[in-house]
Amino acid sequence: MTMFPRVVERIAELREMLDAERANGRRVGFVPTMGSLHAGHASLMHRARAENDVVLVSIFVNPLQFGPKEDFAAYPRDLDRDLEVCAGEGVDIVFHPDVDEMYPEPNRVTVAVGEIGSILEGRTRPGHFDGVATVVSKLFNIAGPCRAYFGQKDAQQLVVIERLALALDFPVEVVGCPTVREPDGLAMSSRNVYLEGADRRAAAALKAALDSGALLIADGERSGAKVREVMAARIDAEPRATLDYAVCVDPEDLVEAAEVDGPVLLAVAARVGKARLIDNMNVSPAPSRGARTGTSRSEASITKG
Amino acid sequence: MTMFPRVVERIAELREMLDAERANGRRVGFVPTMGSLHAGHASLMHRARAENDVVLVSIFVNPLQFGPKEDFAAYPRDLDRDLEVCAGEGVDIVFHPDVDEMYPEPNRVTVAVGEIGSILEGRTRPGHFDGVATVVSKLFNIAGPCRAYFGQKDAQQLVVIERLALALDFPVEVVGCPTVREPDGLAMSSRNVYLEGADRRAAAALKAALDSGALLIADGERSGAKVREVMAARIDAEPRATLDYAVCVDPEDLVEAAEVDGPVLLAVAARVGKARLIDNMNVSPAPSRGARTGTSRSEASITKG
Repeated sequence: MTMFPRVVERIAELREMLDAERANGRRVGFVPTMGSLHAGHASLMHRARAENDVVLVSIFVNPLQFGPKEDFAAYPRDLDRDLEVCAGEGVDIVFHPDVDEMYPEPNRVTVAVGEIGSILEGRTRPGHFDGVATVVSKLFNIAGPCRAYFGQKDAQQLVVIERLALALDFPVEVVGCPTVREPDGLAMSSRNVYLEGADRRAAAALKAALDSGALLIADGERSGAKVREVMAARIDAEPRATLDYAVCVDPEDLVEAAEVDGPVLLAVAARVGKARLIDNMNVSPAPSRGARTGTSRSEASITKG
Repeated sequence: MTMFPRVVERIAELREMLDAERANGRRVGFVPTMGSLHAGHASLMHRARAENDVVLVSIFVNPLQFGPKEDFAAYPRDLDRDLEVCAGEGVDIVFHPDVDEMYPEPNRVTVAVGEIGSILEGRTRPGHFDGVATVVSKLFNIAGPCRAYFGQKDAQQLVVIERLALALDFPVEVVGCPTVREPDGLAMSSRNVYLEGADRRAAAALKAALDSGALLIADGERSGAKVREVMAARIDAEPRATLDYAVCVDPEDLVEAAEVDGPVLLAVAARVGKARLIDNMNVSPAPSRGARTGTSRSEASITKG
C-alpha cells in the first residue's frame, strides 16, 4: 500500500519535525515546487528519495514571482493529484502553506539577484527572479540544512538559486537535475496544460530548435551568432510559435557566447497558443583535434539537459 | 584564570562546531559585531552568556555597509583587545573571518529592506541597511538557529534586523538590548574614539537633547513637531555639534509621529568633530488621566534606551 505523505501547513510545525529528524542524524532532501506536479517533479523526488533519509516537498504558488499580468490566479492547482504524485515517490512530508502563512505582512524585504535576474527570462518577467530568490530564501530558512533539488529545465532559475545559496551562505546543497521530456521532446512543464491540439504539437518546435543548434555545433560551427540564427529559424518555421529568444550563452553567467569554445547553454523561449514555454540544453563542443590530425571537424557531446 | 575564546576564521569550521553543539541540545547565543568592542558590546555578551549554553561573537568589519566616502579603512580594529573583552564575558567562540572568506566573489546578491532603509540613517548612508541586512543574512545562515543580540543604540538597525528575521523566516530570535552609556550620558560607540577633548564633552549634547524631548513629553506635550524642535534646539545650542536629524517616530516603522499618543522613539544624529554620532530613547507618555481627574497633565515613563 502506498503511504501518503504527511501534509503540514504551519511553518513552526514543519521546523519542529525537521529539527527532530536532523537531531536524529537524518538528512533532509527538499523539493520546492509550485504544485501541478508532473514527471519532471517526480524525477526530483525520486533523486531526493535515493539520496536522503527524509523527503520534503513544498507546494506553494508564490505570488511574488508572478508579474501583474501573469497567470498567478489561473496557475493550475490540484492538491489531491499532487499528493498522489508525492505518494508514488515515497515523499514523507508535503509543506503546503497558504499565502498568509508565508506572507503574514506585506512583503518588504526582498532578495535581489542583480544583473542575472534581468536577462533572458528576466527581460519579459521583471522582478520574477527576485521573487523566486525571496521565496526560496524563506523556504531554505524554514526547511533548514538540506539538499535541495531543482530542475535543469528552468536553467536560469537554477543558476540564480546556486548563486543565492553561495552568496548568502545557506546551509543548503543545491542539486540540479536533468529535464524530463515527453516522447516528442517537449520538456515537462506545469504550463503544458495550456497547450491544446495543434498547439501541443507545435510546442515540439522548442526542443527541435535546440537539437538543430546542438547538431550545428557537432558539425563544427563555432559562431554563437550562427547557432542562435539556426535555432531562431527553426522556431520561426513553426507558424503557431512566436519566438521570444534563442540564445547560446555561458552556462555559468548566462552571457552570450560569441564563440563556442567550451560548454555552452542553448536556451529558447517562445509563446505557443496560450502558453509561454522555455527549454534549454547543455552542449559541449568536442575538443578540436585539428592540431593533431589536420582536420578541423570536431564533435559535440550533448549533455542531457 | 580567564579562558580566552576559540578564534575561528573559516565558515565551514564554525558551522561544524555549532552544529555539534546544537546536536547535543545546547543553545547558541550570537553577538554579531564589527569589533572595536566596548562596554555596550560586553553587555550583549553578558546577556547572551546568561541565556544560552554557547556564546558566539563575530568580529567582521563588513565593507558592504560602508559608503564610498565612509570610514571602512579607518574603522578601528584591535583583535587582541577585542579578545580580552570577549574573554572577560566568558565568550566561547569568536568568529573572525577575513573579507575573502565572507565575499569570495564580488557580491551580487543583496538583501533589500525597502523604504525603512532609506529614512533617517539611510538618508545620509544610502545602501547602508541593505549592506547590513545582507551580511546579517550571511551571518545568520552561518551561525544557524540561535538567539542574536543587538543594541538598542542602533535602533533603526534593530528594527531592520527584526523585520529581516521575520520576513525571511530565519530560525533566529532577535533580542534587543539597552544602550550602555558613559557617566555623562554619551552612548557607547566604537566611533567615540574619534572624539577628542572639547568634542568629547560636546558629544553629551545628543543624550541631553533626548532628555529634553522626554521631559517635554512627561510635561504633557503631545505634538511630535514640538518635541523635535526642542531636541534640535538643544543640539544646535552646542557649537561643536552639527545636527543631522532630531525626530519623534513610531518605534515599529520609524514614521514621524504627528502626535505622541503612544510609545515613541526619540532619535538624534549629529556630527561632532570627526565623528558622526547617533542616539535614541524610547518614551511612553503616561495615559492621560484628564477624563477622570479633570487635569490634562500626564507623565512619561522613559524606557531605558
